[in-house]
Amino acid sequence: MQAAIDEFIADRCTEHLACAGVDAAADVLRDFAVGGKCLRPTFMYLGWRCGADDDHAALRAAASFELLHAFALLQDDVMDGSTIRRGKPAAHVAFARWHRERELPGSSDRFGESAAVLLGDLCLVWSAQMLRESGVDAKALARVWPRYDEMRTELAIGQFADLVNDAGAFPALDQVLDVSRRKSGNYTVRRPLEIGAAMAGCSSRVLASLGTYGEAVGDAFQMRDDVLGIFGSPTVTGKPAGGDLIERKATSVVVAAYQLADSTVRGQLKELMSRRDLDESDVDRWRGLILATGAVDRIEQMIDSRLKRALERLDAAPLDTAVRAALGSMASACAERAA
Amino acid sequence: MQAAIDEFIADRCTEHLACAGVDAAADVLRDFAVGGKCLRPTFMYLGWRCGADDDHAALRAAASFELLHAFALLQDDVMDGSTIRRGKPAAHVAFARWHRERELPGSSDRFGESAAVLLGDLCLVWSAQMLRESGVDAKALARVWPRYDEMRTELAIGQFADLVNDAGAFPALDQVLDVSRRKSGNYTVRRPLEIGAAMAGCSSRVLASLGTYGEAVGDAFQMRDDVLGIFGSPTVTGKPAGGDLIERKATSVVVAAYQLADSTVRGQLKELMSRRDLDESDVDRWRGLILATGAVDRIEQMIDSRLKRALERLDAAPLDTAVRAALGSMASACAERAA
Repeated sequence: MQAAIDEFIADRCTEHLACAGVDAAADVLRDFAVGGKCLRPTFMYLGWRCGADDDHAALRAAASFELLHAFALLQDDVMDGSTIRRGKPAAHVAFARWHRERELPGSSDRFGESAAVLLGDLCLVWSAQMLRESGVDAKALARVWPRYDEMRTELAIGQFADLVNDAGAFPALDQVLDVSRRKSGNYTVRRPLEIGAAMAGCSSRVLASLGTYGEAVGDAFQMRDDVLGIFGSPTVTGKPAGGDLIERKATSVVVAAYQLADSTVRGQLKELMSRRDLDESDVDRWRGLILATGAVDRIEQMIDSRLKRALERLDAAPLDTAVRAALGSMASACAERAA
Repeated sequence: MQAAIDEFIADRCTEHLACAGVDAAADVLRDFAVGGKCLRPTFMYLGWRCGADDDHAALRAAASFELLHAFALLQDDVMDGSTIRRGKPAAHVAFARWHRERELPGSSDRFGESAAVLLGDLCLVWSAQMLRESGVDAKALARVWPRYDEMRTELAIGQFADLVNDAGAFPALDQVLDVSRRKSGNYTVRRPLEIGAAMAGCSSRVLASLGTYGEAVGDAFQMRDDVLGIFGSPTVTGKPAGGDLIERKATSVVVAAYQLADSTVRGQLKELMSRRDLDESDVDRWRGLILATGAVDRIEQMIDSRLKRALERLDAAPLDTAVRAALGSMASACAERAA
């Protein structure tokens, strides 16, 4: 999987990025390509394996999802103003530094953001190209495209909805879960699985089972991410401790805490959620308040119930034993990533 | 052509943008869809007509290029900080206003830029979808995709190169022409023509003629745009008078003036090209200096020679008379847009 991504990216870097006058672009892209967990390619390939045998072309098709993910991360980091990704400077920060070091005219920050958005655009175009040129036969690919376009639309629309989903606007938990399902959960688990299975020509019965499994695992994945975004260690998340609080993201944990709090604590949370600047002690205090409301326990219960639902659905589905086992492990891994 | 675009966009707006929680997005997109000159779809369709008869599916395929153009404009305006497009507020400005009027939390400007980039992403995805679902048969489309991916890559790479192409860096004229060919000329004329012709199964001889014609017309188009960007009336360009000077763009006219100037004038130009803020009288003075160098005459000569080359190549190509005449008119229209 990783080899297929590396090879495709190396070709693109040599052929195109070398002449863009921005030698930093190839470095940033290569960093992106090696740092990921390849969750989406893995789910896509497991979807394929629900209806077909191991196949190199299908593996390349699946690997293309990692490039699509690079597009999403590159542009999200600009929009969220996230400065750290996978323990290193985010792409827009790296590009801004490149610009500053060369003392080029104009704003380095603006250059950094534009360059990261453009590299994202390239990844969006290249991911579709890699899928198209994967070697998967035309009939199987024809089943992929409508779902693929639907997924990419859902991803961008979800990010759109996320832009107006600020903690200071006090959204409801259902609304937050809906946005994060569209922005992240579906696109991480359900859609790659369904697309892989459709490519393999799976029956609508199998597709329905994978849809239910995928939605539940995607939800669990996103809620685990929300817990880690507040309580996770930077060495695990590759992001600053309490990053979601600093960015005032309206995550499931933040919103559940607000809903569970009594009126005194709610007032304190409200004040923190509306504050422009937070220092480390504010973040610590916020963390303590959240824990005291029982919000983390509530979210952990929700993660458990999603995991249980996913595994039950898996047991009932007409799947090959090895594939069922792999999907079971992936579900647990998504739900239980270590803090 | 316009009807095909309107219909596709209306479907997308109803189905997707309504649930994004940003009602402004559908309005912005509709504005974009009706305001354009449809140059790229026209060239794509004329390319098709070089090898095939009139066809509704091919017309829809060609219309998809207007959505690709919307992607480019939406994101370019953010990167260039252009606030006006086609005589109206640019999309990111309209989105920022929407955010401000609703008194939503967070920065309105940041929201506006993010929303415009995302709407651009959606247009990029939807343009490929519209092409894929145009009704053009699979064999003809298979000839399109490699060239289409190549064009989209070239467009993004050209914009990348443009980011470091600031007037304050005093690039050479050849370099500027090369960047603008990659960023704008090729993608406006040559690539759409070649893609349409490839879709129709034209011979390599016809493709080569269209390539030469397209490159020359694209260059002429871009240089005309550069003249208008400094001397054009806002009612024609839909942008502020002298907009390229205000944005310190390293256009062909700006750079030719610098190269043609004597050392005294060069010093004055250098000072203007490096200045952070320019008022109206600075722009007027800069315009006068450029005219005095003879740069506009030089660029007009270059436009004429490109137009001549394009028409000669057209005469020698094995084309249907009506198609040749249409391509001739388009070449003149691109080279001679009224100031």
